[in-house]
Amino acid sequence: MSQYDHIKQQAYEANMQLPKLGLVLFTFGNVSAVDRGLGVFAIKPSGVPYEELSPGKMVIVDFDARAVEGNLRPSSDTKTHAVLYKHWEGIGGIVHTHSTYATAWAQAQRDIPIFGTTHADHNTVDVPCAPPMSDEMISGDYEHETGFQIMNCFKERGLDYKEVEMVLVGNHAPFTWGKTPGKAVYNSAVLESIAHMALLTEQINMAAPRLKEALIKKHYQRKHGPDSYYGQ
Amino acid sequence: MSQYDHIKQQAYEANMQLPKLGLVLFTFGNVSAVDRGLGVFAIKPSGVPYEELSPGKMVIVDFDARAVEGNLRPSSDTKTHAVLYKHWEGIGGIVHTHSTYATAWAQAQRDIPIFGTTHADHNTVDVPCAPPMSDEMISGDYEHETGFQIMNCFKERGLDYKEVEMVLVGNHAPFTWGKTPGKAVYNSAVLESIAHMALLTEQINMAAPRLKEALIKKHYQRKHGPDSYYGQ
Amino acid sequence: MSQYDHIKQQAYEANMQLPKLGLVLFTFGNVSAVDRGLGVFAIKPSGVPYEELSPGKMVIVDFDARAVEGNLRPSSDTKTHAVLYKHWEGIGGIVHTHSTYATAWAQAQRDIPIFGTTHADHNTVDVPCAPPMSDEMISGDYEHETGFQIMNCFKERGLDYKEVEMVLVGNHAPFTWGKTPGKAVYNSAVLESIAHMALLTEQINMAAPRLKEALIKKHYQRKHGPDSYYGQ
Amino acid sequence: MSQYDHIKQQAYEANMQLPKLGLVLFTFGNVSAVDRGLGVFAIKPSGVPYEELSPGKMVIVDFDARAVEGNLRPSSDTKTHAVLYKHWEGIGGIVHTHSTYATAWAQAQRDIPIFGTTHADHNTVDVPCAPPMSDEMISGDYEHETGFQIMNCFKERGLDYKEVEMVLVGNHAPFTWGKTPGKAVYNSAVLESIAHMALLTEQINMAAPRLKEALIKKHYQRKHGPDSYYGQ
Repeated sequence: MSQYDHIKQQAYEANMQLPKLGLVLFTFGNVSAVDRGLGVFAIKPSGVPYEELSPGKMVIVDFDARAVEGNLRPSSDTKTHAVLYKHWEGIGGIVHTHSTYATAWAQAQRDIPIFGTTHADHNTVDVPCAPPMSDEMISGDYEHETGFQIMNCFKERGLDYKEVEMVLVGNHAPFTWGKTPGKAVYNSAVLESIAHMALLTEQINMAAPRLKEALIKKHYQRKHGPDSYYGQ
Repeated sequence: MSQYDHIKQQAYEANMQLPKLGLVLFTFGNVSAVDRGLGVFAIKPSGVPYEELSPGKMVIVDFDARAVEGNLRPSSDTKTHAVLYKHWEGIGGIVHTHSTYATAWAQAQRDIPIFGTTHADHNTVDVPCAPPMSDEMISGDYEHETGFQIMNCFKERGLDYKEVEMVLVGNHAPFTWGKTPGKAVYNSAVLESIAHMALLTEQINMAAPRLKEALIKKHYQRKHGPDSYYGQ
Repeated sequence: MSQYDHIKQQAYEANMQLPKLGLVLFTFGNVSAVDRGLGVFAIKPSGVPYEELSPGKMVIVDFDARAVEGNLRPSSDTKTHAVLYKHWEGIGGIVHTHSTYATAWAQAQRDIPIFGTTHADHNTVDVPCAPPMSDEMISGDYEHETGFQIMNCFKERGLDYKEVEMVLVGNHAPFTWGKTPGKAVYNSAVLESIAHMALLTEQINMAAPRLKEALIKKHYQRKHGPDSYYGQ
Repeated sequence: MSQYDHIKQQAYEANMQLPKLGLVLFTFGNVSAVDRGLGVFAIKPSGVPYEELSPGKMVIVDFDARAVEGNLRPSSDTKTHAVLYKHWEGIGGIVHTHSTYATAWAQAQRDIPIFGTTHADHNTVDVPCAPPMSDEMISGDYEHETGFQIMNCFKERGLDYKEVEMVLVGNHAPFTWGKTPGKAVYNSAVLESIAHMALLTEQINMAAPRLKEALIKKHYQRKHGPDSYYGQ
């Protein structure tokens, strides 16, 4: 028994969703779950296969990425999670994957254009692709800097992490987040679907236009606005 | 027990086909089943995961989209279903999905060309893509207007909804229908397959010609004509 | 009990492989199994879902496509099977599907180029695509003529049906065959894989060359030549 | 009981991973497991379906490809395995597949460019594509020469087989290896994923640049360098 059992359980369950949703090969992904009151988060141990995971194997880390509890080494991406939790206070869970289509857009270093309502149901803007990091950032504290690369991208573009819950890191892969770990996983699956459809859309029509502004607003508001009428 | 149990059961069973056929991610789809005598239809509740659905959770709505029975809020696309049931009297079921390939064609704002007999077995024409809606329609009663956008597209092109049971709504996604909810689901799966094959066909041969008229007629008639000889 | 039970069983088992191998949606495919001594073949009934099939539902037909035994109507493609059995005496089984990639090549009206050893392990030539049929053939005895369209294509190109066990019918879809129904199904799956890889090959390198002659011969002979050393 | 039981078991288990990972159709793949002390390896029998495999059916062969134990004929690719084991002493297992995307790159005769960190986590260079073999090599001892074609490619490019554990053989298909059979299988799955993403990357951005040098080094070192911090 530990005071962290609830976030270990949450992190475990959210991690196990990744292979079910087809978002990871082997161990190429990780989810974390935060407890804001305790100032720590639970994250997948590094390199452990999903079939061998259990809630007890989750590692507890604080927002400076210092180990707090657990026998295993935490995910190699732990510092990126820590930075985002520290600075973006509304986040309850973070997901990192190398899902096929989202990663291809990251490798291509392009934002994912907003082509339809599937995208607009979740975002009012193109999915941002942060530029590849500078050599200084890479050779420095790499995973720590990855968090700042993401935040800088949002700052420069004037994006709000509470409205846009996904990003591509150029040359690398996607990160998503949400109020809960489950919502963050949901966003990873949505991003992969959007990424797939956007590629197909350009293949069908090279000149496909971005979604018109009226539809962007309408679809986002019916799911997320003050008068939203989607869901229960 | 309710006088609507039969359409709740039908709607439930048809909705559960969508994830099995790979046509939906999470809750991005809905099916309805009509009772013409009672003037109502049963439809999926909004935002409820498929694994939590049951016949009793289906919502009963009339053709003006007024709630008749049920504790949950109906699908946010309910008004589109209502409009189509009201004006197209031969329809017994309606399906809306964001299936990957059909949605990509909708986002690309292109009709799906009739390239082969798989298509001709079900339609004698390209799958129509209704243009994106006007800003007035979008900011007005959006889902209600979506129904009219579909009907207007059929009117302008001289299409008969009894022969062509599928449409793409530009920038949005597909709708299909049929004499029964099961047939409407079948049409959604066929549309997704046709959409996939048409994209591949253009990738293999940019100058691939539309199917010749004689084959279009032959294949459609052997399945649907007065002397049809497909099926039992 | 019937003297045809053995081919009903064979046809049933081979048909059930199609959905397992991902080669059919709904009922868009059929397999037949021949008994040369009795001069008949067993074939899937038309439009019956795979989950409802049983050996007893297979229909027995002779080489002029006349019904011999069975309560159900045979596949609408039965006449094509009959023609091929009648004229190509070495065939033990025939398969017709609308599998995604092979059908896309048929719709694009292109032969599938021999790009690699996966192809050469099974064929020494491009997979032939018979041209779309003439209007006369289509408006005549369509499925009967489809068989002749296939045979004419082989005649004109000097191909031997015992060496090349697959064909695309332009605008339509693939047919495969083999010494046994199981081999014919195997060929359908191989064709689908070859069709997928060939499309990808051209996407990766628009100028990808055909396989060199020495490799074509080597790979075919190691599987099929007099000194073959593949398998047991 | 045999002194080779341990490598038969290893080879069996590794072979059974191939269909689970979606890397083989029918019998188009094989894995071997070596015992350096005994100077032999266990390999899949030729043409035997995966569902019929058992540890006892594995064939024991020495580094000159001479049969040592087993009732079945070994894989037709056995000589390629033997050559690689003989000359590359650090290898514990070898895998050959015709997996879809990797084979497409081999058919296109192109190296797979290093576009992102998924690739860099495993390799610091493009995945090499050995040129198609000369007619002399093909008509000679083909599978034996395939091993030399792979080694020559590494020699000419100055690659170390301990760092780059995968290769495409032009016009043919991929081979991978590793310290253990399990690692070799892992590499086959990683290669297929990299191959898929690289194709998509070029489709999204024809001018996508190779990964910058600093990221290549960083990602490889965090998994494989002396100060690696990935895994347990």
